[in-house]
Amino acid sequence: MQERREQLLDLGLRLFGSKPYDEISIEEIAQLAGMSKGLLYHYFPSKRDFYVACLRAASQQLRRLIRPDPALPPSEQVRSSLSVYLDHVRANRAKIQAFVGGGIGSDPEVLEVTEATRRAVWEFMLAGMRAADDEHLLRSAVRSWVRFVEAIALDWADSEGVPKDAVIDVCVAVLDAAVGESRQPPEPPGPPRPISMGE
Amino acid sequence: MQERREQLLDLGLRLFGSKPYDEISIEEIAQLAGMSKGLLYHYFPSKRDFYVACLRAASQQLRRLIRPDPALPPSEQVRSSLSVYLDHVRANRAKIQAFVGGGIGSDPEVLEVTEATRRAVWEFMLAGMRAADDEHLLRSAVRSWVRFVEAIALDWADSEGVPKDAVIDVCVAVLDAAVGESRQPPEPPGPPRPISMGE
Repeated sequence: MQERREQLLDLGLRLFGSKPYDEISIEEIAQLAGMSKGLLYHYFPSKRDFYVACLRAASQQLRRLIRPDPALPPSEQVRSSLSVYLDHVRANRAKIQAFVGGGIGSDPEVLEVTEATRRAVWEFMLAGMRAADDEHLLRSAVRSWVRFVEAIALDWADSEGVPKDAVIDVCVAVLDAAVGESRQPPEPPGPPRPISMGE
Repeated sequence: MQERREQLLDLGLRLFGSKPYDEISIEEIAQLAGMSKGLLYHYFPSKRDFYVACLRAASQQLRRLIRPDPALPPSEQVRSSLSVYLDHVRANRAKIQAFVGGGIGSDPEVLEVTEATRRAVWEFMLAGMRAADDEHLLRSAVRSWVRFVEAIALDWADSEGVPKDAVIDVCVAVLDAAVGESRQPPEPPGPPRPISMGE
């Protein structure tokens, strides 16, 4: 049952990543899945629900992928996550484009999933930082850095000949500039002052 | 005739900025404008066309506002444009939110206007820069910086107590980091090597 659901999500990710939302029908999904429309509706009450579930699955996949590796020294964690992220964007360029540009981008639930994905990224990043004087501005700078990374990754995925390391260097330099002195591991003696995530 | 059209666009900007796209009808627009539906259709064949025209007018307004002032020294041009931009975002927060989040964001023509606006911003920025070794990466970094600025400006507009100058400082530091050594005025002796805008 759970397995069947996951197979459907896999199928949906491929399908929604291959052509515009409006060109996909419940009939087509059921046919490709080899099940009746009735059974498909049992898993997902509507095409929109199915789409949102697929997007959510893609988001979870990405979040697992880019979770910083605690075995690495802090300075390497960001580079390593960025490297994995860039590979992911290049490998899934068409799907990402379809989801971002051709889907139902202003649907509130879709925006919610997109925002949750971004939030996961900046929370990973903030977790390794010392609290700054102006925490609001720090959070905001890291959040905005995520938008920078998204944009430069899509550009890079479309380009040829720009070395991945050069993009990572730019992203790290921008993060350093964005957060000023805050991007150091928390001071060793005392416990780090937690940064509330706000929202 | 031209004047009537501009009055309609002013009305549309206020209206689309005040409530969701789907809640606005052609009847309401005609009534507020004090004209018949027939005459309104003469100016704009559909609600969607009217919406896109309003968005285009907002984009042109913004581009006029943030055009760098050539009378300023190059280092001040970016700060000055950022300052005007931040004020604009704060003053128009609700409208921007309605256009970005509540409109028809995945409509191709809407995406085109949004992209053209961003392109204008990064072209302003690139115009003052020396050609870098890797022009593709430079253009991409400036483009992505525009996304950073958009995000941090919206955050700032929602916040209280973060000084505008601190946000401008972060944006300038991030731009410097993003473009490396390129953000200097072109060398005085020869003409600057033009940077092709691509796209």
